[in-house]
Amino acid sequence: MVTKNIKLDVAVVGATGLVGQEMLSILEERKFPVKNLYPFASEISAGEKVKFNGEEVTILPLNKKNIESTSVDIALWSIGSELSLEYIPVAIKAKWINIDNSAAFRMEKDVPLIVPEVNGDKLNSVKRGMVIANPNCSTIQLVQILKPLHDQYGLKRVVVATYQSVSGAGKLAMKELEEQTVNLLNGRSISKQVFPHQIAFTILPHIDDFLDNLYTKEEMKVINESRKILALPDLKITSTCARVPVFYSHSEAVNIEFRKSCSLKDVRSLLSHTEGVKIADDPKRFVYPLNVEATGKNETYVGRIRLDESVESGINLWIVSDNLRKGAALNAVQIAELICNKL
Amino acid sequence: MVTKNIKLDVAVVGATGLVGQEMLSILEERKFPVKNLYPFASEISAGEKVKFNGEEVTILPLNKKNIESTSVDIALWSIGSELSLEYIPVAIKAKWINIDNSAAFRMEKDVPLIVPEVNGDKLNSVKRGMVIANPNCSTIQLVQILKPLHDQYGLKRVVVATYQSVSGAGKLAMKELEEQTVNLLNGRSISKQVFPHQIAFTILPHIDDFLDNLYTKEEMKVINESRKILALPDLKITSTCARVPVFYSHSEAVNIEFRKSCSLKDVRSLLSHTEGVKIADDPKRFVYPLNVEATGKNETYVGRIRLDESVESGINLWIVSDNLRKGAALNAVQIAELICNKL
Repeated sequence: MVTKNIKLDVAVVGATGLVGQEMLSILEERKFPVKNLYPFASEISAGEKVKFNGEEVTILPLNKKNIESTSVDIALWSIGSELSLEYIPVAIKAKWINIDNSAAFRMEKDVPLIVPEVNGDKLNSVKRGMVIANPNCSTIQLVQILKPLHDQYGLKRVVVATYQSVSGAGKLAMKELEEQTVNLLNGRSISKQVFPHQIAFTILPHIDDFLDNLYTKEEMKVINESRKILALPDLKITSTCARVPVFYSHSEAVNIEFRKSCSLKDVRSLLSHTEGVKIADDPKRFVYPLNVEATGKNETYVGRIRLDESVESGINLWIVSDNLRKGAALNAVQIAELICNKL
Repeated sequence: MVTKNIKLDVAVVGATGLVGQEMLSILEERKFPVKNLYPFASEISAGEKVKFNGEEVTILPLNKKNIESTSVDIALWSIGSELSLEYIPVAIKAKWINIDNSAAFRMEKDVPLIVPEVNGDKLNSVKRGMVIANPNCSTIQLVQILKPLHDQYGLKRVVVATYQSVSGAGKLAMKELEEQTVNLLNGRSISKQVFPHQIAFTILPHIDDFLDNLYTKEEMKVINESRKILALPDLKITSTCARVPVFYSHSEAVNIEFRKSCSLKDVRSLLSHTEGVKIADDPKRFVYPLNVEATGKNETYVGRIRLDESVESGINLWIVSDNLRKGAALNAVQIAELICNKL
């Protein structure tokens, strides 16, 4: 939260999307000191209005001219890599401070890739015209638990398998899951637009494009972004990312091998004292992280913590976080708060 | 398939369940040499009929007397551990040869735990009154791919995360997923009977009971049964098992570290020549194993095969198999075929 007495002109670019909408509601929730709000969206939504702090604010079409003519302190972008690459350079020239939720700038050397609780200290100098990248949803929740564990035990190797919700693929993907589900349960045929295969009642081991090394971009984001955020360029980490037929929140099965020995009690205590992380781990009472329970919450939930006997020191655990909140909009707003306190 | 000129009296115990029904249809499909079929089920189903080879066969209530008075050569059991423990000892005395799909006898030293393509050679002596255990669904598909890889490269360590369908939990579980899904999409409240939490649009990191080491029984089945089937009692292997809102077939993300170096080309060639395994791996054309496509098939599908750069030699891959067929009924019938050829 911002404690400083300051008011800023804030743009939300992609204000009609799932993440954009969540950004607006989190700016409200956390009482972000907004002087003027400028919601941008594609030409199709131009003229429509969004609600913000009880007022209706007209959406501006996203184009070069409108960026140049709008005075913005901090802009939260969520419009996908291609459009980010096209318009953020214009916003840089216009001296906006840009927090970008796309993958476009994340791996650039001079662009900070920030999860405030994990590496907020890397954002030491804030200046107008800069870009700060918001990491990928599946990475954020992972580094939240890897960071304290690395500090304590030293990460030796990490193996991740994800169970990612369709909201990560946008509004149309959610509609596709809903419509296919209804049609299948009524014995009707289904149509596909967003996913290459039926998503209703199906597990797709495929998120984002395939690369030459046969990993998906999503899988390489987990690997490369984790390394950058944790400042461990040689971290041994591998991942498999799958889309599952659930609407909200991503689940991850995480296997971690440590350099130093660990005890279950200490791991649990460590994670229970980690900012932004909440323990849900009482299996005999059926308490473990569930996507339907994490949805709408700010914390990343961790449970099913247990020793992995297949290595000298290691654990398995299960983490769940709301991909639209901590995985996207909340993390972006938290970065904006960090910036505020440095302006 | 049985090539021998022989006819046997066959019992299917649990003939009205999901696996029992599948056993009947696979016995038909594979033209198993059945002289008389004796379908057993609980008292509730007694007197009902099942269809087999075009004829209606009356279900016998499962009780001590009926076992003792029925002359059976081979019995396929799928009634859960508790009932297996109660009735299989009676069948042993009655000199039936028992193939049990429950976990009751799997880890007993003198009980063979068989996946025909993997360790069918372990079934060297067949005698009346014996029990052969059918492994757990999530284990069978895993050892099918681990076995050839171990023979070639030596398994160093295996990390598995599963995405298991609700049919593994029986008919009522399937109904629960369907009803909850319909109710949620119509804005109605849901009820729970089988699963401790909502299963529609939810990932549950919980299958079977929790043990003192905080693993579930299902997770320990993957570990212990794999070790027994592969005859690698010290195999380093760990697993996380999750229930996902799909009806049929289990998916698994498998990370394998090898002792010897491997090439992607050789791994692919090896698996493409493995009996019972089919490669589905052309990601740029969106070809990878999918539960909806594996359902009703006999093969275990493998895809997303790629090198794991986090170890000296290792791979990630994705396997999918029909949990009611190769994961249960088909494997049991294949064991019966092995027995036939040894009688």
